[in-house]
Amino acid sequence: MTTRTEPRPAKLTRKGEQTRMRIVTAAAQLMFDNGVAGTTMEDVKEAAQASSSQLYHYFADKQALVLAVIAYQDETVVGGQEPMLARLDSIEGLRAWCGFLVQHQRDLECRGGCPIGSLGGELAETDPKARVAVSGAFQRWESGIRGGLHAMHERGELAADPEDLALTILAALQGGLLLTQIHRDVRPLEVTLKAMIDHVAAHTAQP
Amino acid sequence: MTTRTEPRPAKLTRKGEQTRMRIVTAAAQLMFDNGVAGTTMEDVKEAAQASSSQLYHYFADKQALVLAVIAYQDETVVGGQEPMLARLDSIEGLRAWCGFLVQHQRDLECRGGCPIGSLGGELAETDPKARVAVSGAFQRWESGIRGGLHAMHERGELAADPEDLALTILAALQGGLLLTQIHRDVRPLEVTLKAMIDHVAAHTAQP
Repeated sequence: MTTRTEPRPAKLTRKGEQTRMRIVTAAAQLMFDNGVAGTTMEDVKEAAQASSSQLYHYFADKQALVLAVIAYQDETVVGGQEPMLARLDSIEGLRAWCGFLVQHQRDLECRGGCPIGSLGGELAETDPKARVAVSGAFQRWESGIRGGLHAMHERGELAADPEDLALTILAALQGGLLLTQIHRDVRPLEVTLKAMIDHVAAHTAQP
Repeated sequence: MTTRTEPRPAKLTRKGEQTRMRIVTAAAQLMFDNGVAGTTMEDVKEAAQASSSQLYHYFADKQALVLAVIAYQDETVVGGQEPMLARLDSIEGLRAWCGFLVQHQRDLECRGGCPIGSLGGELAETDPKARVAVSGAFQRWESGIRGGLHAMHERGELAADPEDLALTILAALQGGLLLTQIHRDVRPLEVTLKAMIDHVAAHTAQP
């Protein structure tokens, strides 16, 4: 599961890279708001203020654009959390990360769900390349969560398998986000993440 | 959140009810396999071996059919689990239910995810009626999980809030199903549900 996305066209100019990124960010926002099926290449063209020739220069078809959006969300969502994930080697770090996740859903009024999970749920059965790309993003996320737990385990502070724990926390986060999106209520995410913190705390020597 | 679906057309004949149900089950399977966006009214017509006039007699448009599919999955998935949910008042009952869920994913080769969660994830931002209907199905599911936990709590066997615990278990189940679908591997669901059983067991006087 290493093939995350198609290789980018090589040697983009600085301006070309900017145009490409403008298209990808516009597509990512549209797909977050309306789903992949609810987003046409025409919508993306308008939102990105790009010409058809620009759009199809960078992306042969909608599937290529979808893969670029998954890579972008991987970088934005998982990459953006990495400074916080790097501090998950304590209950306090876990609390700070969970607090951020809950506040972020409050800010969004519980709309949209997880930008990666939503893409995965919509595309898993119809676009095998997209499924593999989302699988890669989830593995990176799980690995980020696992790092701190491994450190706690190594230091003898955590008496539980960090592998299983990291996978459980990511699953609980995804399910909490889905229920929060569906009910338009932050409580499912809040309660589920609190249970995860308690679950980790029950296996640690930390307060 | 009581409005689950549109009222059905009143007084269907037995034959009419059978035709309607044939259309709904065909649509449910197609939407499970290919998503809502990947399913056209034409696909449903063919799969159900129905005429256009039959299809549009029972369902004014695709949205009406989608709401009927959500009600059908609510009845099939949540209703179908109710005998098992009724026995969730012990760790043994919880283990049996989780074992069933994992085996079911094995049987499906991890394809399709949760029939209700998938519909919710795909439709939440674009179809408010569908979102409310899925919210109702999740509330029924949560309530089914909560019943047994409440009974354990009443008997003094469970020293944790059954409300929070039921919500956490449903979230963990949804996230576990999504990761299992994306990775095409039953491990995420298995590990996550095992963690939930351990989490409940840690708050009970039972073995």
